[in-house]
Order: sequence, then C-alpha cells, then structure tokens
Amino acid sequence: MPSFDVLQAACPSRSVLRHLTDRWTPMVVAVLSDGPARFGQIRGRVEGVTAKVLTETLRSMERDGLVTRTAQATMPPRVDYELTPLGRTLVTPLAAVRSWAEQHAEQVLEARARYDDTVD
Amino acid sequence: MPSFDVLQAACPSRSVLRHLTDRWTPMVVAVLSDGPARFGQIRGRVEGVTAKVLTETLRSMERDGLVTRTAQATMPPRVDYELTPLGRTLVTPLAAVRSWAEQHAEQVLEARARYDDTVD
Repeated sequence: MPSFDVLQAACPSRSVLRHLTDRWTPMVVAVLSDGPARFGQIRGRVEGVTAKVLTETLRSMERDGLVTRTAQATMPPRVDYELTPLGRTLVTPLAAVRSWAEQHAEQVLEARARYDDTVD
Repeated sequence: MPSFDVLQAACPSRSVLRHLTDRWTPMVVAVLSDGPARFGQIRGRVEGVTAKVLTETLRSMERDGLVTRTAQATMPPRVDYELTPLGRTLVTPLAAVRSWAEQHAEQVLEARARYDDTVD
C-alpha cells in the first residue's frame, strides 16, 4: 500500500488537497450534494462565480474523477453535472470545513478586529 | 443568531473558508495539533514552504485567532506557536480533508490519467 503524506513536498496528495480546497470546489460539492444540476443551476446557487471560472472548476473536478458531465440529447442540448461515487465521499469532510467557517465566522471576525487594533 | 452562508457572495464566512483552505494552513494545523512548536520546527515538517510564506501564513492564522505567538525571554529569543482553543476545533475537520486527499490520491491520479487520455 503506497503511503501518501501531504507534508512531503513531492507527494502527489498535495495537488489533490489543493484541488479540494480550490476556491469554488467546496461550494460546488455542496450544491451537487443535493443531486445532479445543470450549469446554470449551479451558477445560480454559488453566488459570484463567473461562467469562465465555474467551467474551469467543473472541468478540473471532472478530470479528478469527482464529477460526471452528461450531455442530454434534448433541444436545446442540456448538460447535467453529478457527483461520482468518489465525489460523494467528499461531501461530509468538505461540509465539516464549510460549516466550521459558517459557525465560527463571527469569532474569527472578532479576532481579526482585535488583532488589527493591536497592530495599529 | 446570525446566519452565515458561504454560498452567498457577500457573506464574511467566505473569507474565513478561504483562509482555512489556504495552501499551507491545513498543514500548519496538522503540525501544531501535536503541540506548540517553534518556527524552524514547523518549517522542518511542512516541506517546501519558504520562510516568507510560512511567516505570512502564521501571521494570518494569528490574526484569525487560530494561533498564538509567544516570545520566550531566552537568549537567543525563542518564539513558540500554539493552536488556540478555537484553532484546536479545526484539527478534526481539516484532518478529514487532508486524510481524504491522502487516501484517495491514487484514485484521483488514475482519474486524471484517464481524462487526459480521452482528451488527447
């Protein structure tokens, strides 16, 4: 069994960790944890992401095996994105980090204000 | 109770999430989860980080209230970094994401290779 360790500079798990914690990946995983969605639906829920950057994020997630992209033969054509079984195993750990950010945002903002007061 | 939601563009929890998932923060939290450490010790364990970037990461973590920096009145002076109680609550969620990266690195690398074969 190979041993991966993100603390080692040459370990490929580092690039995996980088992708998971890309700016938009945790939010896309959150949206797709509710089920498959079309590009426009994802973009509607992840506020502030540009079409270009969301396209890049989804492509990178597809390349990493986290998301499938399925073109439906409808008119107009329609593309659905869905978490793969591998992608679904990410929902819980990423939700824990996201939820930490939401639950502790106030404490962090207060800490920043205190720090900035001390430094000024 | 205020409601924070990282999916909302203006929500301050977004910047909190960004900091948690900064390139080096999960690794520094991992190292400090074993107890207080000096700058050089942290740098020795987080392979590949430059002194400049580690300094910036630790300062940002200190500002966010995750880490304390204590100067010891020794000769030469010595500075210890330690997780605050708030920082310690991050150990488990960040370890889950790091450990996902390590445990699934192989699957992700295989998915990338398959994807790149298809695209070429």
